[in-house]
Amino acid sequence: MPKGYDGKESTVSLSVIRRMPRYYRFLGELAKMGCTRISSRELSEKMGLTASQIRQDLNCFGGFGQQGYGYNVPALQDEIGKILGLDQKLNAILIGVGNLGRAIATHMDFEARGYNLLALFDNSPDVIGTMVNQHTVEDISILDSFCRKHKPDVAVLCIPKEAAKALAEQLIELGIHGFWNFSHYDLSLNHEGIVVENVHLGDSLMTLTYMVNKELNKNK
Amino acid sequence: MPKGYDGKESTVSLSVIRRMPRYYRFLGELAKMGCTRISSRELSEKMGLTASQIRQDLNCFGGFGQQGYGYNVPALQDEIGKILGLDQKLNAILIGVGNLGRAIATHMDFEARGYNLLALFDNSPDVIGTMVNQHTVEDISILDSFCRKHKPDVAVLCIPKEAAKALAEQLIELGIHGFWNFSHYDLSLNHEGIVVENVHLGDSLMTLTYMVNKELNKNK
Repeated sequence: MPKGYDGKESTVSLSVIRRMPRYYRFLGELAKMGCTRISSRELSEKMGLTASQIRQDLNCFGGFGQQGYGYNVPALQDEIGKILGLDQKLNAILIGVGNLGRAIATHMDFEARGYNLLALFDNSPDVIGTMVNQHTVEDISILDSFCRKHKPDVAVLCIPKEAAKALAEQLIELGIHGFWNFSHYDLSLNHEGIVVENVHLGDSLMTLTYMVNKELNKNK
Repeated sequence: MPKGYDGKESTVSLSVIRRMPRYYRFLGELAKMGCTRISSRELSEKMGLTASQIRQDLNCFGGFGQQGYGYNVPALQDEIGKILGLDQKLNAILIGVGNLGRAIATHMDFEARGYNLLALFDNSPDVIGTMVNQHTVEDISILDSFCRKHKPDVAVLCIPKEAAKALAEQLIELGIHGFWNFSHYDLSLNHEGIVVENVHLGDSLMTLTYMVNKELNKNK
């Protein structure tokens, strides 16, 4: 773990953690544009947060700014990357190579986000053996032997809701610690030390429905 | 608008709004299993929230429980659906029919979430004219005339980051009020009354990176 935030780290709330990737992304964009230094006021304007919020968030990990100087953009991005663990490569597998699984396997830069994507699995004979982003799609029937050999840490689930629960239990048995779950099934596994990130695109879409209707009703 | 929450509604925070789709989804699953009535305690256990959180959230919209009875599951789901506006169909278009756009157009039940998906657009000759989920993919060059004729409310952006800003500006000119944005570009449009729901799958993945690494480091 990086120096400077040990001891504090365990008490950081999930809402702070959820803002870290956004800081990382914004700082990366700033660095790409050649920006090397930024005040917390400027960063807050760009990100739509208050300067005090940013200072509070970063203080959870020890704080990185210098009074009167602001933040060193590449150094802060690097530190946040280390906090997130992007420098330690976790081994990941993806299960379910339909349109969504294919989109994730093709477009998501796993490596930049802390993973080696080891393999893709499906149960459909139409898909098994096809190439997706330099991976041959494997038959789900070899999942057990694959996991025992390669010991993946994380599984990306792009499978139907009905299949998710049983498969998740199997994967935990096989040593999976974390799930990135697109299956429309709220995985809440009663297993110590198992981490789940549920992605509910439908919930995001319904939030938009509410916000757009609210705007439209204003003008009526 | 449903009766009972006018006046209160405008002050509801985004974090409460964001929990509404999840209530809607859970209640739908309960109703499907034949459950017609639930106490706030039982609902809270299922959802991993506190009973008081649930009461507070629902009170933002007038409150729906009866003391000693709990909640009527289908009635509450229906009310939350009305709050979200799922009963009022917004017209939507989707732009960018790569793997991700194709996955969204195929798997997302837009109708159940308050939309008519009118049309899909792309700029690639390989994709234009192909069928995706009963829609023929249209040439982006007819976007202007299509929007003037059909007046869509919402655009789903599954396009590269580089193209997003200019296209969003064009779409606002054409009367789009809301964006469901997958483009890895934080749309923050300085236009009164325009609503954006940015979906950053990469941020979600990095949150998982953090959580898994934290668990793994515990055991070291």
